[in-house]
Amino acid sequence: MSDAVPWRASALTLFPDMFPGPLGHSLAGRALARRVWTLDAVDMRAFARDRHRSVDDTPFGGGAGMVLRPDIVDAALSGQDDGRPVVCLTPRGVPFTQAHAAAFAAAPGLVLVCGRYEGIDQRVIDARAMQEISVGDYVLSGGEVAALVVLDAVVRLLPGVMGAAASAEEESFAEGLLEYPHYTRPADWQGRTVPDVLLSGHHEAVRAWRRAQAERITSERRPDLWARRACQPPAPAGCHAAGAAVTRSDERIKR
Amino acid sequence: MSDAVPWRASALTLFPDMFPGPLGHSLAGRALARRVWTLDAVDMRAFARDRHRSVDDTPFGGGAGMVLRPDIVDAALSGQDDGRPVVCLTPRGVPFTQAHAAAFAAAPGLVLVCGRYEGIDQRVIDARAMQEISVGDYVLSGGEVAALVVLDAVVRLLPGVMGAAASAEEESFAEGLLEYPHYTRPADWQGRTVPDVLLSGHHEAVRAWRRAQAERITSERRPDLWARRACQPPAPAGCHAAGAAVTRSDERIKR
Repeated sequence: MSDAVPWRASALTLFPDMFPGPLGHSLAGRALARRVWTLDAVDMRAFARDRHRSVDDTPFGGGAGMVLRPDIVDAALSGQDDGRPVVCLTPRGVPFTQAHAAAFAAAPGLVLVCGRYEGIDQRVIDARAMQEISVGDYVLSGGEVAALVVLDAVVRLLPGVMGAAASAEEESFAEGLLEYPHYTRPADWQGRTVPDVLLSGHHEAVRAWRRAQAERITSERRPDLWARRACQPPAPAGCHAAGAAVTRSDERIKR
Repeated sequence: MSDAVPWRASALTLFPDMFPGPLGHSLAGRALARRVWTLDAVDMRAFARDRHRSVDDTPFGGGAGMVLRPDIVDAALSGQDDGRPVVCLTPRGVPFTQAHAAAFAAAPGLVLVCGRYEGIDQRVIDARAMQEISVGDYVLSGGEVAALVVLDAVVRLLPGVMGAAASAEEESFAEGLLEYPHYTRPADWQGRTVPDVLLSGHHEAVRAWRRAQAERITSERRPDLWARRACQPPAPAGCHAAGAAVTRSDERIKR
């Protein structure tokens, strides 16, 4: 049990049983059990007022699909009105980055509105000043899995969840590069050996090799990140904003 | 019960209890129950051979964190050796897009390797010709939530999961634009009204308004997509590769 006030997440959804889902296990699950954070899945259907419990209606202007009604979403948000940032998960949003994760971790918590159908009436998004955020350029069946992505990224940054490990890892972001490849024992696996330099004990050579690998992989796989590096002054702070993807050491898994 | 051979997903993980998680509900969950697809969570720990059941070791060349051993991952993959694409979820990967989702949906299934710790030994990634894929530029606690993202995006494209709705929605991608805002009843909500044009019944005016809105939102929120549109010939096929994010109508939710 943590002494501090827990970081408080609320997910507004039509599928409350999807939560905590994977976040009930491992690192996030143990932090949930210790009340480092809490998660409240709010069923938006409970705010419907007619006997059919309808939450959606057809779009003005025509077109396929249904739109979540502003009055329903607004009513569901009324119980969450405590100053936490309100995020709407939608492919129309700005791309979710590590900078968002850090900002949300520093807030008292987060309210996540999970869209379904064609989307949510824009008026309640505007009235509630929701941050519209996208986890990537692909179509999901709803906002719930995207909300789990955001929560996973945020929870691991909360104090006491990962210990000292987290801060060290985030350093890698400053480089704006994907991470170099990793190797461990056995040194010879099915005739495939580890690059000699990694066994050399020559720390400077290891560092240079890893740097060259990171640059090669970034230029091959992420021309977008690579171009942003080239466009910017070589200040680490500038590259941080590029939101580069890196691998990281997370928890040691309980056996 | 579907008559066709199910699309077959296997997730190699140290946390098999994270699956199916959210995909056990709603659209994906009903398709799972009908055996349109199957999901097998394979515990990589079961392939450890020492009494500590260790699956990881320290990285050659030094550094923080632990690396998943190649022999363990390879042994876990041996039971999955049936020609399905093998994907490794990692922030070092190429960005996951709707084009990947469509390709995976057309395959007989998918094997998803969920990294933990600092990552997976590169030799087994190479030996098994894994596709290294990233769901976004943020750090997750492991590959499991990323695997759920990929599966959600793929499963909704499988025949019989969404019906005719899906194909129509994917059309929006051809534009390389984020989607316009949506509005539904009530037409006046707390003094906030719907844009007049959407109530006009003038289909061409509605279309032009939505187009202008989509362009405005894309240029504001996604300068990357907007620049790619400007750089490319106006052929829809060219813009499709840009992997634009769109909203879409999914299922009508069972009440």
